[in-house]
Amino acid sequence: MVTIRDVAKKSGVSVATVSRVLNETGYVHEDTRKKVMAAVEELKYSPNEVARSLFKKKSKLIGLLLPDITNPFFPQLARGVEDEMQREGYRLLFGNSDENAEKEMDYLNTFIQNNVVGIISATNNKTKTNYKDLSIPVVFLDRTSNDYPSVYADGKEGGRIAADEILKRGSKRITLLKGPAHIQPAQDRFQGALEVLSQSSVDFHVMTTTSFAFEDAEKWAKELFATYPDTDGVLASNDIVATAVLHEALRLGKSIPEDLQIIGFDDIPQSSLLFPPLSTIRQPAYEMGKEAAQLLVKIMNKEKIEQQHIQMPVTFIDRNTTRKVDTNG
Amino acid sequence: MVTIRDVAKKSGVSVATVSRVLNETGYVHEDTRKKVMAAVEELKYSPNEVARSLFKKKSKLIGLLLPDITNPFFPQLARGVEDEMQREGYRLLFGNSDENAEKEMDYLNTFIQNNVVGIISATNNKTKTNYKDLSIPVVFLDRTSNDYPSVYADGKEGGRIAADEILKRGSKRITLLKGPAHIQPAQDRFQGALEVLSQSSVDFHVMTTTSFAFEDAEKWAKELFATYPDTDGVLASNDIVATAVLHEALRLGKSIPEDLQIIGFDDIPQSSLLFPPLSTIRQPAYEMGKEAAQLLVKIMNKEKIEQQHIQMPVTFIDRNTTRKVDTNG
Repeated sequence: MVTIRDVAKKSGVSVATVSRVLNETGYVHEDTRKKVMAAVEELKYSPNEVARSLFKKKSKLIGLLLPDITNPFFPQLARGVEDEMQREGYRLLFGNSDENAEKEMDYLNTFIQNNVVGIISATNNKTKTNYKDLSIPVVFLDRTSNDYPSVYADGKEGGRIAADEILKRGSKRITLLKGPAHIQPAQDRFQGALEVLSQSSVDFHVMTTTSFAFEDAEKWAKELFATYPDTDGVLASNDIVATAVLHEALRLGKSIPEDLQIIGFDDIPQSSLLFPPLSTIRQPAYEMGKEAAQLLVKIMNKEKIEQQHIQMPVTFIDRNTTRKVDTNG
Repeated sequence: MVTIRDVAKKSGVSVATVSRVLNETGYVHEDTRKKVMAAVEELKYSPNEVARSLFKKKSKLIGLLLPDITNPFFPQLARGVEDEMQREGYRLLFGNSDENAEKEMDYLNTFIQNNVVGIISATNNKTKTNYKDLSIPVVFLDRTSNDYPSVYADGKEGGRIAADEILKRGSKRITLLKGPAHIQPAQDRFQGALEVLSQSSVDFHVMTTTSFAFEDAEKWAKELFATYPDTDGVLASNDIVATAVLHEALRLGKSIPEDLQIIGFDDIPQSSLLFPPLSTIRQPAYEMGKEAAQLLVKIMNKEKIEQQHIQMPVTFIDRNTTRKVDTNG
């Protein structure tokens, strides 16, 4: 392999001078520059990506930080980011934070050490300190931020819609599952639903859950029916929890949606394959990933940004865990 | 920021000499070395990861190539790889090949350009040419290879077990779903099941499917019952397809497992939350990812490798889409 040393030898200058020429920094006499470039050409010297990123202080690497890729909402999000970044010639350095601040900081540090040129973060760590000192563009994904560009779905509106739809369809004893307190999107959808339910005339319970993990979902579902056996409508904190609630309800012999209506949140790909297929609030995960990637690329290219905060629409997906609305009132 | 030039100036030597010292290449007089290191210390010069990887020709980056992270088998696999690599101080460059040879090659090239020190590949591209020219260690994951170290589950045995279990439980008109032809693990499990069924005395159909995508699974399921309405046992090519078959069977009013038994493959986290919960062949995805990471780290550290090819066990998970075995007969 041809090295920078070979180029220096061939052109009769120092390695530092070759570096200055390739780096386009510092003064180099035009004759010297020509000699170096002739040697580069003759030797077919091609600094690799790492060398180039060192010379130009620029790489084609993007850091992508997710809470947990095994939560089925995130693979779609990641594909959206990756497909768009791949189209633009960027590559992803990837990590899961598990919503652990230390792990998040550790990943951010190594992203920077590896000279990423931008970061997309979907973690929910409240302390922004990690991001303040970064000198490269950051886009938050699935998370709102006043201080940074962000792409997120309208969770509060999603919560409102879910509550509206279950009320409209006649549930009278609703259980509202409040997702993990430290996850902002979970709290947004909770607040939206709470707002609508508290203004309605139906009874409702709020039940707190502390994670979105598969292993835990079954536990919440059992607890739900043990505590509120006569509930006739469940607003779940996400589709995983809704799946577990549906499972438990069927196991208890309830008719869905006659005895019990269930509305999830996310619309993960599995939800339409459940039986009965799950009614849910759709977040456009893939499109959110794509939007975040496009926004970051625009910022890195110093293009004019019309919108720093992109709110994506949520929609009610009316499948079979909710009853049909009586259109005659 | 302190640069290599500052170190050179401080120690009164050339940039090339500082580079030789940090790089530990070429002859450097001991006195010079000491001067340079003193300057490094005094100036608190810390070459960043990229610079260090250039000097030492070594990074802490690993390339991870998956077919598609949105297939629910792969997030578990990826977490296994990541958790182990994170523990060892490595970071992941990540890409999805979509089983597309061009995309695979493109990712391999950019992995190399970014100086990854090892690659874990879970793609199923038959042509090994892409990998032959690589000068860094490669471990294949979820894929067998004679030429390279690999970690995979015993798919053929999994297929045999699935067929055995469904026969033992009394299915007489079995439909065997043959997964995508270009995906080796799908063919292994198919061959294993075919071997057992063809030696049995029951009738069976083979139905070909061409992808593992969610959107397609529903289509295969409908086609299956339209073509073979009296089938009483389905061996699905993976859990996604099994989920769709279960969905369609319930929609048609079939009793599960009385009228129809279903066995999936993979044991993705969702499968236990289905109703009835899916009987399936479990591949230890997370553990496979971990094993592959450990194997790659050992190879990179030039440790003695006892096993180049690690075959992980598969197990039958006896849930509720299969009948209980009559242990008296």
